[in-house]
Amino acid sequence: MTVTAPKGFRAAGVAAGLKTTGAADLALVVNDGPDATAAAVFTANRVKAAPVLWSQQVLKARMARAVVLNSGGANACTGPKGFQDTHATAERVAALLGGMGAGDVVVCSTGLIGEHLPMDKLLPGLDRAARALARDGGPQAAEAIMTTDTKPKTVTVTGDGYTVGGMAKGAGMLAPSLATMLVVLTTDAVVGSSDLDEALREATRVTFDRLDSDGCMSTNDTVLLMASGASGIQPTVEELTVAVTAACADLAAQLLSDAEGSTKDITIDVQGADSEDDAVTVGRSIARNNLLKCALYGNDPNWGRVLAAIGTTDALFDADSLDVAMNGVWICRNGAAAEDRSKVDLSGRAITITVDLGAGDARATVLTNDLSVAYVHENSAYSS
Amino acid sequence: MTVTAPKGFRAAGVAAGLKTTGAADLALVVNDGPDATAAAVFTANRVKAAPVLWSQQVLKARMARAVVLNSGGANACTGPKGFQDTHATAERVAALLGGMGAGDVVVCSTGLIGEHLPMDKLLPGLDRAARALARDGGPQAAEAIMTTDTKPKTVTVTGDGYTVGGMAKGAGMLAPSLATMLVVLTTDAVVGSSDLDEALREATRVTFDRLDSDGCMSTNDTVLLMASGASGIQPTVEELTVAVTAACADLAAQLLSDAEGSTKDITIDVQGADSEDDAVTVGRSIARNNLLKCALYGNDPNWGRVLAAIGTTDALFDADSLDVAMNGVWICRNGAAAEDRSKVDLSGRAITITVDLGAGDARATVLTNDLSVAYVHENSAYSS
Repeated sequence: MTVTAPKGFRAAGVAAGLKTTGAADLALVVNDGPDATAAAVFTANRVKAAPVLWSQQVLKARMARAVVLNSGGANACTGPKGFQDTHATAERVAALLGGMGAGDVVVCSTGLIGEHLPMDKLLPGLDRAARALARDGGPQAAEAIMTTDTKPKTVTVTGDGYTVGGMAKGAGMLAPSLATMLVVLTTDAVVGSSDLDEALREATRVTFDRLDSDGCMSTNDTVLLMASGASGIQPTVEELTVAVTAACADLAAQLLSDAEGSTKDITIDVQGADSEDDAVTVGRSIARNNLLKCALYGNDPNWGRVLAAIGTTDALFDADSLDVAMNGVWICRNGAAAEDRSKVDLSGRAITITVDLGAGDARATVLTNDLSVAYVHENSAYSS
Repeated sequence: MTVTAPKGFRAAGVAAGLKTTGAADLALVVNDGPDATAAAVFTANRVKAAPVLWSQQVLKARMARAVVLNSGGANACTGPKGFQDTHATAERVAALLGGMGAGDVVVCSTGLIGEHLPMDKLLPGLDRAARALARDGGPQAAEAIMTTDTKPKTVTVTGDGYTVGGMAKGAGMLAPSLATMLVVLTTDAVVGSSDLDEALREATRVTFDRLDSDGCMSTNDTVLLMASGASGIQPTVEELTVAVTAACADLAAQLLSDAEGSTKDITIDVQGADSEDDAVTVGRSIARNNLLKCALYGNDPNWGRVLAAIGTTDALFDADSLDVAMNGVWICRNGAAAEDRSKVDLSGRAITITVDLGAGDARATVLTNDLSVAYVHENSAYSS
């Protein structure tokens, strides 16, 4: 049921003709209340798409009554005209739904950078999407936001008397401080705007922010959480954080396993760190090492490349105290070869790299993919 | 003539049996003086190979009488035994050559990380290398340091009465703060050790340090410059810097064009920057963007990915003032589409990306390669 699992939400997904394939490309999610509390995190990229610039303004009020999302065009690097298109989209949605202004409508776009959206197709598509809104429309919305995704990504988490639902898209550019991903989360819990913001930030900090598929950061990333209050239940911020984190972790794992061209889901567990920041820094450096990612694609337990990646960071460690395991086999102890590398079985899709920095008790987990021939193929042909 | 072009040097390259192919894998370069001045820069990776740790100690005296280099094994992440092997190598060279101690001998290694060198082959190889030393032995030495290089890399620069010669190896892990590369430069100029150090640092700063093939940094990088004084000519530090920079730039271009699996040599010219540091930061971010590198492999002038890469930096710029050209066609002006992308011809090996940040007068050039199917293939099979 995705975003329509919680009470108080309707959704729709339609084909507006933005994708040349004729697939669904326009989604609408409406919060029917009684509350309209909202929180969001956006890409840290300084080159932000028009819909991100727009939505950041909307969220300043910590409220949103609807979100409209289109695939088939990122509306990024499109100048003043691009921003006008976003504004016109929000205005049309507000007019169609009634009882709200453009400033209550979050806009998300995904697809190719640098091209204007075909507004002659998008605006009529909005009319159809508004008519199609339904209490069970979540799955259609999740389909409509897909780009190179091979499957829709949805989640439902059941809390104590309330529900958190969500949908996500993203299959490349999965990177630090978010991925090229659009995520809409909904809940029927009764939540104040500060608590909602706190729960979302804590959840994304340990999930989407630690997903680094290819080191690239998008211009359009948006994670939106809307609360309707329709359940009448008010969880504590801690309870809500647990539920939202579970939803985000589930969606992050789905994004990882569907990343463009990937053949491996790689979990990097860094332990023995002096601080959580150190652990994340080391995990991210390993996640971004192209040589290691190629080796893992080839089922090669090349721990030397793990050490070379760790060595580029400023984390606290002694090079002679580094331990590295792959799928449980400690092939490197004290910075040198240990157990026989032939004991490591990398033939499956799931790979766990465990690093012990020997510098403290902090730890963190970063998720990444391998670097495959298919990744290169897919990303050398994206716009052609 | 490479490293033996300047007067006062002898060199040799032999097959010691470190490579399973039977190709040459051991090189020796000797400075016969009268001077023995030396300067070096080493990898910034904190996980340093045993020969790097050794050679850093040697260079503290700013003197070196010989350098021995082996391919077929990096001797990195090899623990105390690895360091003992390096020490034994330097001692054998000193004994063979006479008139020097182990502390006068720089050691460089390149190859697979994490395995011990077969000293039973290496030490007898040193005997043969010492016997093979010749005034015209430079080309043999340049061949013996190759790993996945497809050709030897050598250079000779003629100064006013003196000469600078050089050889390099490196075809992957070409990255910031040096590449996986070993470079030996020689000169017969008369130079004080401070001037030699200054000339080398300035030369590497604007050449090897701005070569970023795949964002990976090696454990073994070493650039060594030895001066024999045999020409009797004492250039100014400025003159010497120009000559050494020319030699380094030539070798850097050779490394770039032979990078593993590459099909494009990409020059990133960043201009209009507030500072040279900003220009380098932006150039490096573009050089490391896997999505862009895949696009260029596919001859796709995807300027949106250039902007997305710029946006991840903290350089001074306004997203609405960014201009981007590819091979001279300004496909992006003021952060949005400008000239028709179909005008861009990326079919050749050389690609120039010009970025104008519109924030000042500083500029810098960073060199990189595309990300190709062959890169993935080559690096997924390196150790198997």
